[in-house]
Amino acid sequence: MSTSLALEKTMTIAYLGPEATFTHQAAMKRFGASLKYSAQKTIADVFNEVAHHRADYGVVPIENSTEGVVTHTLDMFIDSDLKIVAQIVMPIEHCLVGRIPKSEIEVLHTHPQALAQCRGWIMRNLPHAEVIEASSTTRAAQKAADSPHTAAIASALAAETYGLEIIEASLQDNPDNVTRFFVLGRKCSPPTPNARTSLMFSLRHEVGALHTALKIFQKHELNLTKIESRPSKRKAWEYIFFVDFVGHFETSPTSDAIDELQGCCNFVKILGSYPVEA
Amino acid sequence: MSTSLALEKTMTIAYLGPEATFTHQAAMKRFGASLKYSAQKTIADVFNEVAHHRADYGVVPIENSTEGVVTHTLDMFIDSDLKIVAQIVMPIEHCLVGRIPKSEIEVLHTHPQALAQCRGWIMRNLPHAEVIEASSTTRAAQKAADSPHTAAIASALAAETYGLEIIEASLQDNPDNVTRFFVLGRKCSPPTPNARTSLMFSLRHEVGALHTALKIFQKHELNLTKIESRPSKRKAWEYIFFVDFVGHFETSPTSDAIDELQGCCNFVKILGSYPVEA
Repeated sequence: MSTSLALEKTMTIAYLGPEATFTHQAAMKRFGASLKYSAQKTIADVFNEVAHHRADYGVVPIENSTEGVVTHTLDMFIDSDLKIVAQIVMPIEHCLVGRIPKSEIEVLHTHPQALAQCRGWIMRNLPHAEVIEASSTTRAAQKAADSPHTAAIASALAAETYGLEIIEASLQDNPDNVTRFFVLGRKCSPPTPNARTSLMFSLRHEVGALHTALKIFQKHELNLTKIESRPSKRKAWEYIFFVDFVGHFETSPTSDAIDELQGCCNFVKILGSYPVEA
Repeated sequence: MSTSLALEKTMTIAYLGPEATFTHQAAMKRFGASLKYSAQKTIADVFNEVAHHRADYGVVPIENSTEGVVTHTLDMFIDSDLKIVAQIVMPIEHCLVGRIPKSEIEVLHTHPQALAQCRGWIMRNLPHAEVIEASSTTRAAQKAADSPHTAAIASALAAETYGLEIIEASLQDNPDNVTRFFVLGRKCSPPTPNARTSLMFSLRHEVGALHTALKIFQKHELNLTKIESRPSKRKAWEYIFFVDFVGHFETSPTSDAIDELQGCCNFVKILGSYPVEA
């Protein structure tokens, strides 16, 4: 994908902003620095920009290896017809940024996901700081730049953007802290080697319905790499399942499994097939 | 459970505070008004109070019918030995609270879960308000009481607690908005009719491992009412599964299914069995 995309010079990439977020960095890692980047306020806005042709592709976070899925991104696929055309995997390094020594910090601004990923560090190092949640790590850095006795958890790039120092690096509790991002487009990607498919389905209300659905994947020897359930938002305690598994939706045996799945589910929606690193 | 618990007069109930949160209301719905309630700052603190015998029971949110699981509560069970002894199901009604008319609101304080449950309403009614995330709906109400041009999304009880007016009621996008809470204890509950069991397990790395595990539930005709996957936090992209299903872990066929499950999983941990309304 990278080669063909690089040729289209006027391409616009919408991403979950503001500037210098981890999503911005993931987008630049994938598409390079020469394209037009358009920061969006919310995940829904990224979907809208692509759906309404104001951007060619969108980049949103989908899952962190410590904190799990970004549920709002999953939920967007319920009503959207956009497709996942690629994934970006990026190590996430959280830093304590500000203009004061650690001992003078009274207030700490942080995004809820960063907070969850650094919870242990905060409890050990800043147990008495007032933690204020921000809408992004960049916004947290900006708050730290504007107020006394204040620091933030943000990326090294955000620190640079707001003229802050890195007081301490690598705050994440799990050193193996990685985030997956999805690249959204309006058309499906063609088959590639090492493809993975994401789809969602809802089940009939029968004992063993989930088992019946998963049996199909086993029969075709398609390893499920992921399963998530989300509320349908239509009826309390009714769920939609999101699964990732090996293969491209247009090639056998993946296509056969999807056909069979359609026979035993209320609905099946293909979210896309995209190459993953082996 | 209610009858026997009501007899122990000195009982202390730890809950996710501050006072007047939905968790506080759920705890009072279950245990009545005459016991000692102890507000905790975090979900981890509620677990700690019960584990260290400073509280007899703890109450934490586990799942909202619109927004899905409270991942931090699920994750706490990975390292905790506490048991789920009961569940409380409560309708959640979010209100816009403050001291100004809707047209004068510039800043809106809200908890991330409340924000997610009222996202559609906010977009339609307060698209230009600055939304600031608070650590609880009560804290959001407190902020609205302290600042001009400011309102909050909180419960009617929180409005009353801070002397605020209800500017508009029922903001939740889904009218069928219900939250499940767990009551945590140090010992398992004995068998009851209409029991449900919650357990967690991790799988061996084999194709179809999840299917093999779920097949056991189907074989014993135990309907799975819920499945969630969470990162193991030990290795990137390694998951722990949480399932809820029909029956008490000490009675057949549920106990047989658990025995078989232990044969095909890396580990299985029973989180508790508790009565549910039919």
